[in-house]
Amino acid sequence: MPKMQIWNKAMECMPREEMEALQLRKLKKILHYVYDRSDIYKKKFDGIGFKPDDLKSLQDLSKLPLTIKDDFRDGYPFGMFVVPMEQVVRLHASSGTTGKLTVVGCTKNDMENWTEVLARMITMTGVNSSDVTQIAFGYGLFTGAHGLQYGMERVGATVIPISGGNSEKQLMVMKDFGTTALVCTPTYALHLAEVAMKLGIDPRTDLKVKVGLFGGEAFSEEYRQEIQNRWGMLATDNYGLSELGGPGFSGECELICGQHIAEDHYFVEILDTETLQPVAPGEKGEVVITSLSREAVPVIRYRTKDISSLNYEPCDCGRTTARLSKITGRSDDMMVIRGVNVFPSQIESVLVKMEELAPHYQIILYKKGFLDDLEIRVELSEEAFTDNYGKLEAIEHKLKQQLYKTLSMNPKVRLVEPFSIERSPGKAIRVIDNRDK
Amino acid sequence: MPKMQIWNKAMECMPREEMEALQLRKLKKILHYVYDRSDIYKKKFDGIGFKPDDLKSLQDLSKLPLTIKDDFRDGYPFGMFVVPMEQVVRLHASSGTTGKLTVVGCTKNDMENWTEVLARMITMTGVNSSDVTQIAFGYGLFTGAHGLQYGMERVGATVIPISGGNSEKQLMVMKDFGTTALVCTPTYALHLAEVAMKLGIDPRTDLKVKVGLFGGEAFSEEYRQEIQNRWGMLATDNYGLSELGGPGFSGECELICGQHIAEDHYFVEILDTETLQPVAPGEKGEVVITSLSREAVPVIRYRTKDISSLNYEPCDCGRTTARLSKITGRSDDMMVIRGVNVFPSQIESVLVKMEELAPHYQIILYKKGFLDDLEIRVELSEEAFTDNYGKLEAIEHKLKQQLYKTLSMNPKVRLVEPFSIERSPGKAIRVIDNRDK
Repeated sequence: MPKMQIWNKAMECMPREEMEALQLRKLKKILHYVYDRSDIYKKKFDGIGFKPDDLKSLQDLSKLPLTIKDDFRDGYPFGMFVVPMEQVVRLHASSGTTGKLTVVGCTKNDMENWTEVLARMITMTGVNSSDVTQIAFGYGLFTGAHGLQYGMERVGATVIPISGGNSEKQLMVMKDFGTTALVCTPTYALHLAEVAMKLGIDPRTDLKVKVGLFGGEAFSEEYRQEIQNRWGMLATDNYGLSELGGPGFSGECELICGQHIAEDHYFVEILDTETLQPVAPGEKGEVVITSLSREAVPVIRYRTKDISSLNYEPCDCGRTTARLSKITGRSDDMMVIRGVNVFPSQIESVLVKMEELAPHYQIILYKKGFLDDLEIRVELSEEAFTDNYGKLEAIEHKLKQQLYKTLSMNPKVRLVEPFSIERSPGKAIRVIDNRDK
Repeated sequence: MPKMQIWNKAMECMPREEMEALQLRKLKKILHYVYDRSDIYKKKFDGIGFKPDDLKSLQDLSKLPLTIKDDFRDGYPFGMFVVPMEQVVRLHASSGTTGKLTVVGCTKNDMENWTEVLARMITMTGVNSSDVTQIAFGYGLFTGAHGLQYGMERVGATVIPISGGNSEKQLMVMKDFGTTALVCTPTYALHLAEVAMKLGIDPRTDLKVKVGLFGGEAFSEEYRQEIQNRWGMLATDNYGLSELGGPGFSGECELICGQHIAEDHYFVEILDTETLQPVAPGEKGEVVITSLSREAVPVIRYRTKDISSLNYEPCDCGRTTARLSKITGRSDDMMVIRGVNVFPSQIESVLVKMEELAPHYQIILYKKGFLDDLEIRVELSEEAFTDNYGKLEAIEHKLKQQLYKTLSMNPKVRLVEPFSIERSPGKAIRVIDNRDK
């Protein structure tokens, strides 16, 4: 393997003790900063009698209360902002699933740091100034498209800011402009591969795309394999939340062994989902993030509700930054079905492994009497699609067996025709909750 | 009136002779640049036996052949590019109405110059670092949204990159985020005002928008007035073509007396539409533009087909740059109806002046036997909408009279219900040509 490029060796390959010392210095500074400027944080700190100077170690941070999405919603629109609007150069927002927008902003320094961490993340995937990158995230208030654009510019790649949708045009541009890197949701990547095949374009041979930078929704290892097989590309995952400044928080290097975190800008804790106490390295729990550099909307101990674990071992790529394991679910999308904890990601991992199925599915939650139950609708692959009832029954039987092995329960399954589940240019809607109906 | 801000006094207020000397120096350089790098231009120059050193004065430029949109289409996708893709950091394209995309690109220097001319244009409108600007152009390959975003960042305004569509969300954001400047097409601005009124929001009193930066389509003075009346804002117009680098070419200062051209980056000629020979200052003709600085896709004598005139008088705002009068039509959208030259802009100016009508209309061209004819469909205003046939007849009679005064002909008119003509978040489709059907 050729020597992998690293954007900022000083920060990405810093010895662990130095990094922790840097984090502690920055943490002390940001606690003073928010305490002096934010009524919300002053109240949180005062509530437990904590002064910024009480922080002596990184561990002391766990004494402070968590910040939650409702802190943003309650203060809508600018309650979490600690600088006047004159210093804000960009506003972004996430729509969430219901209710008010979650609004965030950037100062000039925030934009600079955001671009820097994205340049690191992009370089991790092997993308550099010789690449042509097609940004097929939807633009708008969403942070993903704009973030990746600025990061790609920083590394000198050619940016095609095509935005989401219009798959045939996407493929025409990809072919004619010689796109080598694709930025979108994993769902959309798979959808584009399907449309390509229908148009007689084989993504493996007729296109030059060699790497995908995917985000906006979690996806399983099996889903990654599926994308890689169909495209003949390296499919990389990255993670970020608009509340914390969007993408750039962490991403995968070419070795695909966890997401390297920009630790000089973010301090990460993993908490037990029940007790909310820190767990040991390698153990799974809820990801809680503190921004160390953000000026406009600094966030202390943000409860992401995403489930993951941390690995502090240096990576073979040369980076020493802590790595986040694949997000395997969210503490609040965990479904409890007849006493069993079920995550959509577990179901996905089963479905994607069966070649008789296409990787398009929906999980429908409903009430059966007083009990929660679920049905899984999944498309048959085009090859497996048949009217032969015996064959369909055999596929269904096999699927149920596999699901039972993973979930220790027997959900209802329904095989549906290829292309009958709606495709989305953005985030796929995987779980449909009909329990209140 | 307070002293108006000027972004780059050295360039925007340069004495005429100095500007012309600068233009001549840059023109000589760019002719050598394209001759050495572009087969297309070498062929054009060689075809008339012209060497770059033959250019001794600005007037000599008129000896060279024109560049047309087909030069881009014939060379699709990168035929007009004169740098390798490694130096290209951004790709844009315009879809045109039919056929292949018109593709353009930017080097780092192109991006820098583009941002600079946009910062000038934005400053002309009175917008500065204290403004909050909502960019409601659709993002994607279109140059408008991205260009304005980078320009707004340069002047330090707060950018809300909301993209087009979703009018109710646009208005919620406008209200909640305190938007002071609106960037979109003039059509969409008027549409947003209508939606606002329906939602019980009066743009004049319930919103803080004080200035609009409109582009993407030509609009008449009367249309400007209509926007200004409904919004209580200053509505400014700007002009640009993706083939020449998008917006930033020219824009209006707060005095609204023609669009100041970034003359150190663009040299403009106005040609007689029949003879294609230069016309005198102040006379109308086709706008032909030469890019003086563009590296990736330099363009010599681009035939825009837009009709305008030039004013070299210094402006009361302090700028000495030549001003482009309002684009009054395109040489190729001129309709010849029963021997009379008719431009859509002439029709619009009549419709917008009548308060019984809403400023939404379509011009339908059709064949009547062997002759071309046209019908104008225009919406009644909500106030004027009635079932009283006599009243409707009176409005129609008045409209026909006004049209005759302007056009010297009697087109067919049809009054339609309020909101019955489709609204567009982008460029409105004003002319529907059914003559081939």
